[in-house]
Amino acid sequence: MSSELAHQIFAELDSLVLIDPHTHINPHSPASETMADILGYHYYTELAHSAGMRREAIEDPSLSPKEKVGRLAEGMSHLDNTVQLSWLLEAAKELFGVEMERFDASNWETLYDAAQAKLDQPDWEEEVLKKSKLEAVFLTNDFDDTLEGFDTQLYIPCLRTDELVFHFAKPAVRERLATCSGTEVQHLTDLGNALKQRFEHFSRNGVRACAISLPPFFTPRPVSDADAEGALTEILRKSEKASEDARLTLGYWVFWKLAENCVEFQLPFDLMIGVNRSVYPAGVFQGQDLYDSRVSLIQYRELFNAFPQVTFPISVLASVTNQDLVSYAWIFPNVTCNGHWWYSNTPSIITKDLWARMEAVPRNKIVGYYSDMYKLEFALPKFAMFKRCLSKVLAEHFVQDMGWTETRAIELGIQVLRGNVETMFFK
Amino acid sequence: MSSELAHQIFAELDSLVLIDPHTHINPHSPASETMADILGYHYYTELAHSAGMRREAIEDPSLSPKEKVGRLAEGMSHLDNTVQLSWLLEAAKELFGVEMERFDASNWETLYDAAQAKLDQPDWEEEVLKKSKLEAVFLTNDFDDTLEGFDTQLYIPCLRTDELVFHFAKPAVRERLATCSGTEVQHLTDLGNALKQRFEHFSRNGVRACAISLPPFFTPRPVSDADAEGALTEILRKSEKASEDARLTLGYWVFWKLAENCVEFQLPFDLMIGVNRSVYPAGVFQGQDLYDSRVSLIQYRELFNAFPQVTFPISVLASVTNQDLVSYAWIFPNVTCNGHWWYSNTPSIITKDLWARMEAVPRNKIVGYYSDMYKLEFALPKFAMFKRCLSKVLAEHFVQDMGWTETRAIELGIQVLRGNVETMFFK
Amino acid sequence: MSSELAHQIFAELDSLVLIDPHTHINPHSPASETMADILGYHYYTELAHSAGMRREAIEDPSLSPKEKVGRLAEGMSHLDNTVQLSWLLEAAKELFGVEMERFDASNWETLYDAAQAKLDQPDWEEEVLKKSKLEAVFLTNDFDDTLEGFDTQLYIPCLRTDELVFHFAKPAVRERLATCSGTEVQHLTDLGNALKQRFEHFSRNGVRACAISLPPFFTPRPVSDADAEGALTEILRKSEKASEDARLTLGYWVFWKLAENCVEFQLPFDLMIGVNRSVYPAGVFQGQDLYDSRVSLIQYRELFNAFPQVTFPISVLASVTNQDLVSYAWIFPNVTCNGHWWYSNTPSIITKDLWARMEAVPRNKIVGYYSDMYKLEFALPKFAMFKRCLSKVLAEHFVQDMGWTETRAIELGIQVLRGNVETMFFK
Repeated sequence: MSSELAHQIFAELDSLVLIDPHTHINPHSPASETMADILGYHYYTELAHSAGMRREAIEDPSLSPKEKVGRLAEGMSHLDNTVQLSWLLEAAKELFGVEMERFDASNWETLYDAAQAKLDQPDWEEEVLKKSKLEAVFLTNDFDDTLEGFDTQLYIPCLRTDELVFHFAKPAVRERLATCSGTEVQHLTDLGNALKQRFEHFSRNGVRACAISLPPFFTPRPVSDADAEGALTEILRKSEKASEDARLTLGYWVFWKLAENCVEFQLPFDLMIGVNRSVYPAGVFQGQDLYDSRVSLIQYRELFNAFPQVTFPISVLASVTNQDLVSYAWIFPNVTCNGHWWYSNTPSIITKDLWARMEAVPRNKIVGYYSDMYKLEFALPKFAMFKRCLSKVLAEHFVQDMGWTETRAIELGIQVLRGNVETMFFK
Repeated sequence: MSSELAHQIFAELDSLVLIDPHTHINPHSPASETMADILGYHYYTELAHSAGMRREAIEDPSLSPKEKVGRLAEGMSHLDNTVQLSWLLEAAKELFGVEMERFDASNWETLYDAAQAKLDQPDWEEEVLKKSKLEAVFLTNDFDDTLEGFDTQLYIPCLRTDELVFHFAKPAVRERLATCSGTEVQHLTDLGNALKQRFEHFSRNGVRACAISLPPFFTPRPVSDADAEGALTEILRKSEKASEDARLTLGYWVFWKLAENCVEFQLPFDLMIGVNRSVYPAGVFQGQDLYDSRVSLIQYRELFNAFPQVTFPISVLASVTNQDLVSYAWIFPNVTCNGHWWYSNTPSIITKDLWARMEAVPRNKIVGYYSDMYKLEFALPKFAMFKRCLSKVLAEHFVQDMGWTETRAIELGIQVLRGNVETMFFK
Repeated sequence: MSSELAHQIFAELDSLVLIDPHTHINPHSPASETMADILGYHYYTELAHSAGMRREAIEDPSLSPKEKVGRLAEGMSHLDNTVQLSWLLEAAKELFGVEMERFDASNWETLYDAAQAKLDQPDWEEEVLKKSKLEAVFLTNDFDDTLEGFDTQLYIPCLRTDELVFHFAKPAVRERLATCSGTEVQHLTDLGNALKQRFEHFSRNGVRACAISLPPFFTPRPVSDADAEGALTEILRKSEKASEDARLTLGYWVFWKLAENCVEFQLPFDLMIGVNRSVYPAGVFQGQDLYDSRVSLIQYRELFNAFPQVTFPISVLASVTNQDLVSYAWIFPNVTCNGHWWYSNTPSIITKDLWARMEAVPRNKIVGYYSDMYKLEFALPKFAMFKRCLSKVLAEHFVQDMGWTETRAIELGIQVLRGNVETMFFK
């Protein structure tokens, strides 16, 4: 009974037109050109590698797209149990019209050719957006992005700031900042000015969020200008040989300055909490990052108190942090729940985490999902996975357990999928 | 099938008369006087605040009770998905005879007036106890409570000790202790005597438990009298300017002394583990506390080993600590499971945590639930929520998966709801 | 519907002949001699003790086996809700032909006598293996085991190394190593040689894994020979009075050396992560260990990177570490999931953890289960418990949610139960 009901709710939710509030789409090349772009998604390469394929076999630059897909297809037979592979099968069916139960050496070429015929269509970008029912797509823009040459109403700028906080010791980062902002950083005031100039530039171009991913140890705090100036001096002199202490001190100062700019420019500040980069340096491209699950939002206590005017849409990497997120969003007006990130983006975890959010966090503070995609073809299957989890929670918890009508449950689903994206990012 | 069965089991469990083993009831004013007392429960004020209401709008002392409820009703439309709001609706229906699907600006006054008619009845306290099937209610008494002027068989004293362990550096706490115990603390022996006098006083008045809530870092250990005396000397001299170290040293000494008195006076020692106070100082009244989820019961290893004669009914604030609790209760005879506390008191978490307890902890060591209420009107809906979770676990895990008869499952439910409260607190 | 389907899948999986990849079987006395061996399993003694029986009553050496069982039966009435007790009832039914709903003072003797009749049969060992559908059973061998006097094809050696890493400061351990390896350790090279000699000995005798259980703080790293030599010198001089630092330094060196031998001898290295020994020293035999749940696989980052040639089948003690395991196995080719260990070996936790593994880890990297048993009679009920959980995940997640055929789901179940044990340990 509840499973039938969940299907009905899914059908309703699936007809919605959506805004995807976080992706890694390149607005100059949003759709895939060949299926190698699709199978190049790190979820496939890293899982095929983990299941036994050599990295060299996957990343050999001399391979043609078709050869690369053929190779990966072999390694992917071990992945047919994974939800990540089910995204591929759902995209194959819904976008390319090819139904297959498995994807392997026996049938990859059929899919490859069928997909190519679609991908080669001149209006494929529009078609995939339409089939995916996407009205707009948030980007992840480098701080020095010119934001030119694309429609910023469709591909919405988001200022990504990891490099400024964590890699300012790299000369290349500083040079890029000098070039784009017109200010060479020699003193702390220069850095403040350059950062502000970047917010102005993004603001002029329709930015809707500032965003950053953060390592587990990160515990933001205000840093005095004197301490930050000292750290900056060391960094300018020693670059990547600067002490960890100097780098972290300046990083906290920059982070706090970003939050101040979010106040001034009225931007939400997306925090993606918990990732350790390059834990597995011999892993495939984008398949090297993991985490330390020992994180708590208590680390952000000072930040949340200091910036009541800034909305913090928060994503957590490990599911154990989900209850922290629920509890902090339950109390702090400026803490909100944002999607299901990366290693927590699988059905068993989404379902559990979402249920905990939806039973205890005010309904206007839950942004259901973002696709995190690199190519447009993944919005459809990833959102479909989420909508199935959402429909299950609505059917079982709200209709069955709480006695809600189906209509009312669907209204709640709509708010979580679409309404809150608007109120959170477009106020 | 299992959902029908769960309903049947619920019906049986719902007919039980219960003892509520932990509340914050004021025995001199146990029931609400107006609906402002009900909506003043921090769950509503903090969630309305989190959803967007200004604190000033909620806490304006010039508001009449009715105005206050009217205001909150507006802010509470965002909460209709929360289980906390469902408590209000269930109380409205079962206690005040008002059925409503939502609680908002359009209908709050209807409920207000209907509730007022009931609350004004001279026998409302008895009626709400009867409707809630409560035979007795544990209190949370300050250490200097006279315990006079109420029926201690109905409202059972529980000695709450947070202030003694964590706030002895405050002159007001020391003065209150001097006044009630008749001993001014100048040396450590005075403090020992004053503490013992409090246990004697409570013991004469039918106390059934000693209780304390503890921060995540707390790791109790015995402290030598010499060290404690040194810390006391510093505290008496500097009060709140005493070092963190002195305060913690004396706190551990007091805590250990409390446990020793629990041996002597044969009292269970309720430990409520994991809360950080005032994480969000700008939050509403009682809506400022949160937690660091990085806690383990390994921190209590020395305590559990040192006091085999003391039963420790344990509540954990973050669900990640639930497995610790299950495992420690599985091995240590004196570690028992006590209810579902605060941020872990929502159905998705209760269900998961309860199932883990009931499949692995001896049946005589699980106290199912306490309401934690401030006003009597909340026992009914909060216990109902728990009984639904319990019925689900009994139906799905014990009857369906383990092949138990319904009768046997109900017997287990009765023991968890009522029987173990008796054996744990009234032996 | 899904529950019927789960039963069908269970029936199929239950017909498989299995290899049990981790037990504590004594190959010279693999089956129970009396029911006291069965009830002597720490799960029963520790739970009966936790529920209120005195340790002395349980461990009195003057008791006959029958008296001991009679005593335990009394204390075990409080355990009838536990899954651990259900293993006993399932063994009683399937192995001894005695069906009982409860096990208590009223009926224990019936079971005792019926069991004794079976246990006394000369071919009982063969019969229990056959009834349990076990083809082979991995052992846990001390490093100085002669591995003589039993069939190493049936009882497969596994080199357990806890003592070498954690207890080398004990003279008895060093003496045993000297005796079995023929090398008295005076310098680090001696220790290296003795370790290698042990691998050669085990290798000659059909060893299929090296294994170790590890405390929560453990963070393996390479140690220079100079540092290790210094630590060894201190340990040889002071034995158990050596500093913690020296012991840990040498422990890390030995651990790293074990991994190097796993490369050379092509052995998987089972890591059982997270146990604190003797947390409750007054507990019953084998009922004294617990854990600190604050562990992350980030602690093993250096190890996983350093030994890409070694497969690490990993067990985690606390369920919160399960998502770490899923994520690390998703990225690292040499990290694999191995069973459900001890405090995480109960249905609510197995089901949750297994679902998370099976939706995100390549199917060739999941070893479903091992019994961890001390006596052969427990393989049947423990595997049955796991197979029920597995069938549920296959029915609900793969057939119902993912649309798989039942046949395909069963194939996946077979791989997890049997196929991967072969590819992981017999390559």
